[in-house]
Amino acid sequence: MSQPAGFGVISREQLLSLDGLAFLQGIVTGELPQPPISETLGFRLVEVAAGRAVFEGLPEFRHYNPIGSVHGGFAATLLDSALGCAIFSTLKAGDTWTTLELKVNFVRGMNQDTGVVRAEGRIIHPGRTVATSEGDLRDAKGRLLAHATTTCMVFPAGAAK
Amino acid sequence: MSQPAGFGVISREQLLSLDGLAFLQGIVTGELPQPPISETLGFRLVEVAAGRAVFEGLPEFRHYNPIGSVHGGFAATLLDSALGCAIFSTLKAGDTWTTLELKVNFVRGMNQDTGVVRAEGRIIHPGRTVATSEGDLRDAKGRLLAHATTTCMVFPAGAAK
Amino acid sequence: MSQPAGFGVISREQLLSLDGLAFLQGIVTGELPQPPISETLGFRLVEVAAGRAVFEGLPEFRHYNPIGSVHGGFAATLLDSALGCAIFSTLKAGDTWTTLELKVNFVRGMNQDTGVVRAEGRIIHPGRTVATSEGDLRDAKGRLLAHATTTCMVFPAGAAK
Amino acid sequence: MSQPAGFGVISREQLLSLDGLAFLQGIVTGELPQPPISETLGFRLVEVAAGRAVFEGLPEFRHYNPIGSVHGGFAATLLDSALGCAIFSTLKAGDTWTTLELKVNFVRGMNQDTGVVRAEGRIIHPGRTVATSEGDLRDAKGRLLAHATTTCMVFPAGAAK
Repeated sequence: MSQPAGFGVISREQLLSLDGLAFLQGIVTGELPQPPISETLGFRLVEVAAGRAVFEGLPEFRHYNPIGSVHGGFAATLLDSALGCAIFSTLKAGDTWTTLELKVNFVRGMNQDTGVVRAEGRIIHPGRTVATSEGDLRDAKGRLLAHATTTCMVFPAGAAK
Repeated sequence: MSQPAGFGVISREQLLSLDGLAFLQGIVTGELPQPPISETLGFRLVEVAAGRAVFEGLPEFRHYNPIGSVHGGFAATLLDSALGCAIFSTLKAGDTWTTLELKVNFVRGMNQDTGVVRAEGRIIHPGRTVATSEGDLRDAKGRLLAHATTTCMVFPAGAAK
Repeated sequence: MSQPAGFGVISREQLLSLDGLAFLQGIVTGELPQPPISETLGFRLVEVAAGRAVFEGLPEFRHYNPIGSVHGGFAATLLDSALGCAIFSTLKAGDTWTTLELKVNFVRGMNQDTGVVRAEGRIIHPGRTVATSEGDLRDAKGRLLAHATTTCMVFPAGAAK
Repeated sequence: MSQPAGFGVISREQLLSLDGLAFLQGIVTGELPQPPISETLGFRLVEVAAGRAVFEGLPEFRHYNPIGSVHGGFAATLLDSALGCAIFSTLKAGDTWTTLELKVNFVRGMNQDTGVVRAEGRIIHPGRTVATSEGDLRDAKGRLLAHATTTCMVFPAGAAK
């Protein structure tokens, strides 16, 4: 296995040369860097397959909101990652994409005793120009913490934007 | 003006002794600490009034996703803060609340050249047990970057939970 | 089997005397009336189990919007029914509930040649005071037409409102 | 004024020959037919301007759900209409569009005594290929009944689909 690539962003040329699944697998294996937000917030991509992506993160005191629990933005960020990458994992080399909207339901709060949490995204509709996915965030005991759906726009390689 | 209180979380007793507006104004003036997430992600509460709250943040390279722009979780976190605090600012001492769901529309991407962004939340429905709010995220030129709505549940002081 | 009960609304007393599953099963078997909206829009409850409800409807020209396809409100109505009843089917006698929010993704349009469509709702989080569910709308070939999530508030029997 | 055109759908050729505002104004004045769904559910377009559309409807017993109030699909249908037409009103002749998603917050229930309700849609982001709008549903006293946001995809005239 190659030396882990740390945190960073690869060049746009390298990004466009890989299909989504190969790119994301490169992050999981450490051949490609985890993105900067992963270091900043403390979560990482741990599994990916076509139409499915899993991130893990650790809720800490540094994620707290003013009312003494983990900020909802932590769950939203992990779910946005998992749902977006579930779609990204189905795209061909050269395709690009952007998230149009994300809806998150917050079911159970998190604190610094929650332990590692796991966000899984699953594709629902793998459309050519619009795709949707869903997913959930659970603790190590499988308890549901939050769930979400998203809509992404896909720009197929070679299409005018 | 008092010495800024830095980052942290006050005790639950102190939290419940203040109404939402007084508590949030304490954060703006620096008498009360900004929450830990503010330090971690780089954003802060800058204005608050009854039914309205404004946060500012600076998109940086450390917020980047794998595809070379600011992660959607940054916008989601600022909007979740602004929309939740717009509701919190209307609550009485002892009332508590939680966010049930948040929907964010992402209109324009951000990068490290975007500059300071501003998320404003405005209450829509100040219900006794369920409240809703809306808001938007804009750059310094007023260009719309994202907008959102949320539903919060309110637990009035003294009510059984 | 009893004579089908047609369309209508039962008394609040009778409604509160039944648990959600028994009430909804009574509609499926025809012992209790289908609601008035079922007659107006042309759809009906066809299956129910604890945490799951299925409605079927027939898209017709009378459901058309100005741009020549079935109005999105038809899909939204069937999904709102299926998702709400998936939650209702888990409630005890005397519990009441209301829908706080519904988000629908429209994947594929419908027209008068689509044939019978089927909306299935499945509970996600069966909370005591807040519950969530998801579901999808498909044609007879199983093709996805729309999908949705919802948040409902539950008022347990005997609780103050 | 011309004879009201009743209910129906115009030809695709006629539809594509008009810009969105002219088309919708034709429906308001009665030169063009109200869509079939307007007759089926009992609501109609009453005002339109660039980026804004208003529908009115009358909640009746025939809209009732099984639990004795107006079905949420009635509010969803009026809001889907108003929000979609707020976007449609900004499009040029030949542009087409479709709704990707709609989120509705239900604030206050309706019954057969509610009287005429009014759904107003307002454009938020008039993008070239993706547009968003928001709106609310109110009774004759201005009380908020529901509010919503939507994302629509626009296919500019002449663009490949």
